[in-house]
Amino acid sequence: MRLSSQLDIQIEDVEHSLMQQAQARLDHLTKPLGSLGRLESLAKQIVGITRTATPRLSQKVIITMAADHGVAQAGVSAYPQVVTQQMVANFLRGGAGINVLARHVGARVVVVDMGVAGDLPSHPDLVSRKIGYGTRNITQGPAMTTEQACAAIQTGRDIVVHEVARGVDIIGTGDMGIGNTTASSAITAAMTGTPVEQVTGRGTGIDDSTYARKLYAIQQALAVNMPDPSDPLDVLTKVGGFEIAGLVGVILGGAQARLPVVVDGFISGAAALIAVGLESRVKNYLLASHLSQEPGHCRVLESLGLKPLLDLDLRLGEGTGAALAISLAEAACKVLTEMTTFEEAGVAGKVT
Amino acid sequence: MRLSSQLDIQIEDVEHSLMQQAQARLDHLTKPLGSLGRLESLAKQIVGITRTATPRLSQKVIITMAADHGVAQAGVSAYPQVVTQQMVANFLRGGAGINVLARHVGARVVVVDMGVAGDLPSHPDLVSRKIGYGTRNITQGPAMTTEQACAAIQTGRDIVVHEVARGVDIIGTGDMGIGNTTASSAITAAMTGTPVEQVTGRGTGIDDSTYARKLYAIQQALAVNMPDPSDPLDVLTKVGGFEIAGLVGVILGGAQARLPVVVDGFISGAAALIAVGLESRVKNYLLASHLSQEPGHCRVLESLGLKPLLDLDLRLGEGTGAALAISLAEAACKVLTEMTTFEEAGVAGKVT
Repeated sequence: MRLSSQLDIQIEDVEHSLMQQAQARLDHLTKPLGSLGRLESLAKQIVGITRTATPRLSQKVIITMAADHGVAQAGVSAYPQVVTQQMVANFLRGGAGINVLARHVGARVVVVDMGVAGDLPSHPDLVSRKIGYGTRNITQGPAMTTEQACAAIQTGRDIVVHEVARGVDIIGTGDMGIGNTTASSAITAAMTGTPVEQVTGRGTGIDDSTYARKLYAIQQALAVNMPDPSDPLDVLTKVGGFEIAGLVGVILGGAQARLPVVVDGFISGAAALIAVGLESRVKNYLLASHLSQEPGHCRVLESLGLKPLLDLDLRLGEGTGAALAISLAEAACKVLTEMTTFEEAGVAGKVT
Repeated sequence: MRLSSQLDIQIEDVEHSLMQQAQARLDHLTKPLGSLGRLESLAKQIVGITRTATPRLSQKVIITMAADHGVAQAGVSAYPQVVTQQMVANFLRGGAGINVLARHVGARVVVVDMGVAGDLPSHPDLVSRKIGYGTRNITQGPAMTTEQACAAIQTGRDIVVHEVARGVDIIGTGDMGIGNTTASSAITAAMTGTPVEQVTGRGTGIDDSTYARKLYAIQQALAVNMPDPSDPLDVLTKVGGFEIAGLVGVILGGAQARLPVVVDGFISGAAALIAVGLESRVKNYLLASHLSQEPGHCRVLESLGLKPLLDLDLRLGEGTGAALAISLAEAACKVLTEMTTFEEAGVAGKVT
């Protein structure tokens, strides 16, 4: 029995008949046919996801999950591990990039401690769901146990259920974790069969010798653990991270709740690879927010068959790309629901 | 004497020392160096344009100019000419794409009749500055007189002055005019020396025979008028349009008022080609909102040396791309002014 069967994932298909109705309305709006491009396809997709002819994305939430990575010991990052918890504190004070961009688009940020390597002071806005004090060093063995991976995934799903109860129309994903581009490159290499050098980048901005250590660490992690690409849960357990596993749960939970899930950058993308590997129907619920500067992200999106909405040379994570794209998704729904048709506006149609 | 000298264009250079200060602050914010990519360069540019260390883009205005084109008689569009005035009425009722997207980003839309071929009912939100009832057919002679071109440019500049008095922090450009991709292709071919076929697209969605007529009309317009690429005002006069000339004025006026000007798509881009041709310093004040599906737009942006912020397969015009990009510009300024620095947040810096 595949381990993933214990997760009991039930994702419905999107609603195709409503999507056709949405297309018909889009075709009658006062604009040349198809002239709002990807905003139109986005609106149609969100109709299919939400099973709502006139979706409104007023309640927007970005779930930013933080955790530490044992592989940081291998000297793969430009920043010390303590930055993970310091940045969580920064999120809670509202001074980080994600806070600024989420406020800009009217989204709430839910900050989750999935496994930061230190005790964080309690804070009313911090969701504490620590699976452990950071993963184990993947160059020496699996990042976590199967039980931990399943618990982290379930945590992500539970958080979505909680947000649905509070009221949410769209979810964005975000991450924080020193060392997590290393884990994401390992996941991407394992899941897509791409050579490590092609999916490994400079993360937070590492120099040549750190980059060489990072490449070596990923190669070692894959050689030591031999993750099985046909079993995404195995890959996650062996070379993943607690925040990545949590995000797998957020993505699965979002799809299960029929919510559009806006996937941030490379780390969220690695989580999406695992989630879609577990259940391919998840893909229809995903919106790729942007193309990260991390070279592996391009491979992730290719593998998922997703085209990013934005290409702004971002590589911060935290959910910053997701925040910007959520605003485009909201704009797309407003096009569908607020624009008038040719008939309503008394505008003449095509003559040729 | 070049005709353009009578326009008395005075554009200052952007403020480089403040841009350096902005870069220094961006480099201290709690994020890896440069990790917010184009948002960072955008913030820096806006600091330079506005001469403000902490710019706020709270007052956003999109100036959407409408006019008709005599060349519509040549059967170059999929829609009848009356659609121009019907769409102006739609703008005033708030049901068009630009209304929806401008509301989404918190921008006002200023609708200007620069030369619609019909009398529009007066409306409190319509700025009536009709230069004529549509241009003349460019396949038979110049679109307008030099006096008309100068008057239209001056109108655009005056409207910006008026908006500055009301309070505005950023301007977006927009257009409406059946036949105006034909004029814009002619301008682009003339100004950049690119073959007509490479800068001519399907506009609102024309069929093959209409496309053949459109190509022929543009070639004829260039052959009959022989616009002089070294004299942008000559090009504008001979193959332009009243709304395009008005937008040239908006762009010049925006730069003169030290405002960031967000250029919409192909038609606004053709206006930018003329404006930058008249005064090259204007270029530093421009933000290219998106890459239109119109093939000529790519050539326009190349020629201006501008990289679009968005690529969403839009080809509606009206200022819709500018509206979406204005939101990114605002986000960029908030990154600069609202994010905390490493020092303020007590977050450790790089170790390698």
